[in-house]
Amino acid sequence: MTSSSDLEQIETRTLSLVRDFSFLHADDPVANSCKAVADAVAQQAVTSSEGGKRLRALLTLDAFRAFAPQDVAERDMDAVLDLACAIEVFQTGALVHDDIIDDSDLRRGKPSAHRALATDTHSDAIGHGLGIMLGDMLATASVDIANKAACRLGSGSSVVSAFLNMHREVEIGQVLDLAVELNTLDDPEELASASLNVFRWKTASYTTIAPLEFGMLAAGLAPADARRLALAIGLPLGLAFQLADDLLDVIGSSRNTGKPVGGDIREGKRTVLLADAIEAAGDVERRELIDMWEAESRDEAHVRRAIALFESTGAIARSKERIAGLWLESKAAIETLELSQDRKDMLTEACARFVPIVREQG
Amino acid sequence: MTSSSDLEQIETRTLSLVRDFSFLHADDPVANSCKAVADAVAQQAVTSSEGGKRLRALLTLDAFRAFAPQDVAERDMDAVLDLACAIEVFQTGALVHDDIIDDSDLRRGKPSAHRALATDTHSDAIGHGLGIMLGDMLATASVDIANKAACRLGSGSSVVSAFLNMHREVEIGQVLDLAVELNTLDDPEELASASLNVFRWKTASYTTIAPLEFGMLAAGLAPADARRLALAIGLPLGLAFQLADDLLDVIGSSRNTGKPVGGDIREGKRTVLLADAIEAAGDVERRELIDMWEAESRDEAHVRRAIALFESTGAIARSKERIAGLWLESKAAIETLELSQDRKDMLTEACARFVPIVREQG
Repeated sequence: MTSSSDLEQIETRTLSLVRDFSFLHADDPVANSCKAVADAVAQQAVTSSEGGKRLRALLTLDAFRAFAPQDVAERDMDAVLDLACAIEVFQTGALVHDDIIDDSDLRRGKPSAHRALATDTHSDAIGHGLGIMLGDMLATASVDIANKAACRLGSGSSVVSAFLNMHREVEIGQVLDLAVELNTLDDPEELASASLNVFRWKTASYTTIAPLEFGMLAAGLAPADARRLALAIGLPLGLAFQLADDLLDVIGSSRNTGKPVGGDIREGKRTVLLADAIEAAGDVERRELIDMWEAESRDEAHVRRAIALFESTGAIARSKERIAGLWLESKAAIETLELSQDRKDMLTEACARFVPIVREQG
Repeated sequence: MTSSSDLEQIETRTLSLVRDFSFLHADDPVANSCKAVADAVAQQAVTSSEGGKRLRALLTLDAFRAFAPQDVAERDMDAVLDLACAIEVFQTGALVHDDIIDDSDLRRGKPSAHRALATDTHSDAIGHGLGIMLGDMLATASVDIANKAACRLGSGSSVVSAFLNMHREVEIGQVLDLAVELNTLDDPEELASASLNVFRWKTASYTTIAPLEFGMLAAGLAPADARRLALAIGLPLGLAFQLADDLLDVIGSSRNTGKPVGGDIREGKRTVLLADAIEAAGDVERRELIDMWEAESRDEAHVRRAIALFESTGAIARSKERIAGLWLESKAAIETLELSQDRKDMLTEACARFVPIVREQG
């Protein structure tokens, strides 16, 4: 399987699994007058699931290929595909709740789930409630898909345990992300370390660590080994991924990320870039940045000024260094694996998808 | 084990399982500045878990005792206790989300979770976000506890699948409950049937059907048999339980339910009682009821008038008949089981806890 046919298979399978779980089953006894709303929620589950980059599922498949003996790879690839899709379903559910928490109107250029459901039902309150339930349903669906895949793999409870641990980590990550909003901006060192810490829980956990871990578990590695190796490769990679995402938000990209430049600044998001800029700034510019972030909102001029300060304080350069350093760490961890060089190269290639910026910057 | 010592064990074990899952572990790397908020969420997980009636866990234990061979009962009781507590943890998480959806200030006489977290963080928005995450964490915890219990029982994926099916049913139930709010009040027959349908999904699913099913699965019954018998006994029992709960809200009880009489009416809840009253009322009183429920809010005089109409239209009597009929159905299903009479009597006694009103009314 090439990566582009992987992508097609992931897309098709993910939507089919979501459809199977979300729509009422033929033998589900539901009152006629309520069916339209249940259908709207199921349809939204599908709509919200469409069109991700599927990086997490792709990494799961490649990690499995890198570690699995040939016969296991052939026998179990279809079940691993389900397991890979389960992460995508989990992510969709987490984003539905994220958008409610952040009161976001849009997701991937379409109305966010709770907004779409508010439109469907002509009620903001009911849309909000249905959105919470949709997030819950997708979370349940993700575990159900993973549990069924684990049964097919014969790796049973270790995969399910690891999958639930991923849920827990992302939930804690979201709690920590909200906690950072309460932090003072006067201690940039703590802010940078707290923000990186949020990345570990909220992003790296399910973006890189879990896909690597699941791929290795499916390939037959012992749970403790899979966890250790997945952390060694996936933790720096996941941090680099989120740093690169935040950086692209500020400097833009030759690729279309689908977001306008400066969105994080406009929202007043507390990023590592901001912390680095506050830390490196002189007194006047430090005050300027803190005032900007403590204000109710920021306009176009603020966004341009903040980007200029991120540049002049060296925060952007520092972020690029951080990303390059973390990527080296991840690659070094791959090189120490007891695998053929071919398999290591394949895994390195798979991981490099998370840091395209390293290549663009040369 | 008597039922009162069951209750103590369930209470102690539930809180200990919630504590273990919710508080950060010693090896969880979390930035110092974020720990206080993570602790507040974990503490709220414990507070929200305290003091339920534990009817669902008690039924799980008793269903297991009714069906398990003596040696299995002795060997596996401790794992079944965990499984029973997992349902309680699931319920707590579902109630946390329920209270957000209904914008409720109170739960069991204490501030609801999201309100308490808003107070802790001095921010309604952050309290709301943390509340959504707390509900997610408790849902994850419940599956994790069930998965570990299932491993100890050796019944593996069938228990986990049944547990996830319970999650799905309650989530659909909450969707249907919101859908009923959009229904017209002009078709009381459909309203009554839709409300009973919501009871099946939102209440009976996890209150009576799942506890019976899990107890039977743990005792070694085949999944299809456990499902069939749990539905036969648990579906009418769960409907009777919710009807009785709604009735007690209107007529009060010699026991203290902890709720003021008429709360559902004040909130404008669409109950089977309301549907029955609208159906049986003459034109004038029917209009009066519909107008009351379509109004923005209802005062004390409205509550008294509605109760009087529920009485005079025969809706209260009809509800009592419904409850008695469903309870007979449930008891009859128990009588057909291939168990000793002692075990059947024990199970009947366990199920009777869900309909105390049948005894009070004589």
